[in-house]
Amino acid sequence: MSLIIIGTVAFDAIETPFGKTDKIVGGAATFASLAASYLYDKTKIVAVVGDDFKKEDIQTLNNRGIDTEGLQIKEGEKSFFWSGKYHNDMNSRDTLITELNVLENFDPIIPDSYQDCEYLMLGNLTPQIQQTVIKRLKNRPKLIVLDTMNFWMDIMMGDLLDTLKMIDVLTINDSEARQLSGEYSLVKAANKILTMGPKYLIIKKGEHGALLFHEDKIFSAPALPLADVFDPTGAGDTFAGGFIGYLAKVGTINFNNMKNALIYGSALASFCVEKFGTERLKELSQQEINNRIQQFVALSSFEIIQD
Amino acid sequence: MSLIIIGTVAFDAIETPFGKTDKIVGGAATFASLAASYLYDKTKIVAVVGDDFKKEDIQTLNNRGIDTEGLQIKEGEKSFFWSGKYHNDMNSRDTLITELNVLENFDPIIPDSYQDCEYLMLGNLTPQIQQTVIKRLKNRPKLIVLDTMNFWMDIMMGDLLDTLKMIDVLTINDSEARQLSGEYSLVKAANKILTMGPKYLIIKKGEHGALLFHEDKIFSAPALPLADVFDPTGAGDTFAGGFIGYLAKVGTINFNNMKNALIYGSALASFCVEKFGTERLKELSQQEINNRIQQFVALSSFEIIQD
Repeated sequence: MSLIIIGTVAFDAIETPFGKTDKIVGGAATFASLAASYLYDKTKIVAVVGDDFKKEDIQTLNNRGIDTEGLQIKEGEKSFFWSGKYHNDMNSRDTLITELNVLENFDPIIPDSYQDCEYLMLGNLTPQIQQTVIKRLKNRPKLIVLDTMNFWMDIMMGDLLDTLKMIDVLTINDSEARQLSGEYSLVKAANKILTMGPKYLIIKKGEHGALLFHEDKIFSAPALPLADVFDPTGAGDTFAGGFIGYLAKVGTINFNNMKNALIYGSALASFCVEKFGTERLKELSQQEINNRIQQFVALSSFEIIQD
Repeated sequence: MSLIIIGTVAFDAIETPFGKTDKIVGGAATFASLAASYLYDKTKIVAVVGDDFKKEDIQTLNNRGIDTEGLQIKEGEKSFFWSGKYHNDMNSRDTLITELNVLENFDPIIPDSYQDCEYLMLGNLTPQIQQTVIKRLKNRPKLIVLDTMNFWMDIMMGDLLDTLKMIDVLTINDSEARQLSGEYSLVKAANKILTMGPKYLIIKKGEHGALLFHEDKIFSAPALPLADVFDPTGAGDTFAGGFIGYLAKVGTINFNNMKNALIYGSALASFCVEKFGTERLKELSQQEINNRIQQFVALSSFEIIQD
């Protein structure tokens, strides 16, 4: 049994008020698989890079126990490259460069050894690629989580709606939930989206935490208020990786475990932003993660005894 | 021993996407005292109205056990009037009319019977008026909570900083916390503000809940996601009234009770927005409040058992 994460493995060049990087390793599948690797030891990725990607960068993933058999390396091609600059508030950013490169004709290949997939994380890619992955798995995974973005709602809404029918959990941000549903109220938006296919909806609100919707239940996960956000790149992917990694670890899908999975996702995301790129995510200890979870407990727990 | 709330008692005319009102009763002290009255039975207000204010509107407060001896009625003058229009998102609004009227020369008179004040809520007024009230109390109350706004930071920062030295708890929103501290990070902003006088800081984030800061501790209170927000007017004042009303009820000031007070404030605020003006706040039952508190518990509780 395994957890498969499909998404980008890429180069990022990032500028924040705190500094600037050259090309560093990024990509949704990188962040998500590193996060998941702290919770579940059978994490495998499906992605594509060019021959500019260094062996030691792949080795970094393997060192964390991540299976990279599904990582295609395209000779003579270049990896996906994104460059962005964050504003002073760290909540908004400008994209400076997007070079699709190998992503342009990405055909996700699922190795035979991946057919034991029980948990599937479909990172933000075209809805068609996401569907292809589901179809290429011989058995329907126990849990399929899908991340997407406004861009696909703008240009491929039909394909996206078809893909939503095939999944269990959708993760989007608040403005995307409003766009997808046509409702301003997040409660009404969630009720509508839960009729489109997903049984669970996670609405990510960045520094304001995240909301989980399922049937008529709602859970509000706080975000840890941080003195310094060094680089927000990959925080959403780290959240998703921690989320599905926790569920793969506990192995039972129910609302209570989903709530805890949101907390683990949020805790891992809170590490991600402390340094540039994946730097912080490569060096975590179990003790650090446990302590951070305790901070989330302290942050949100209260006890009211009613008359 | 009593809880004194000082603030506006006023007329509002409100337009929202759901409808429009003529002049209805509003004002910070009205919302806050109604909220507090569900938790504490010795709530008293200090405010001023004109002779256009109806006896039955004052009676509505008295019916909830609110002492109005400190409510001055200025013959031949008109009450404070505010008119506003909410946009479709219900988070932003335009002020259409502000008529200060009786508020222009408001001199807060503290009746002798109010000198037993143990809990003091200073609603959003000029920092000088807020100071005057503190000085006119013969004994320093056990707890002083102050609400203020960006307007006073713009034009009377010196007076506001002087007043902050005299209080225990400050309630402001996130952009005001940033303005007051000059820090973007709310953690850094809070650390700075906690050196200005208040021992506790509450940062209100509207639909994203509220944060409580004290020494090195942080508590994040969720907001209840609502399908319909009918009229947000007075929600912040209702929150403050429920907050201090709970503390007056339990009588012990500590971080745990403060956390619960935030939840009670949030719960009462969630009722406030369900109808126009104070309509919903006049008719609550204890059972409704208890049920709403349970909704907050369900919304934010989780249990993680670590290895």
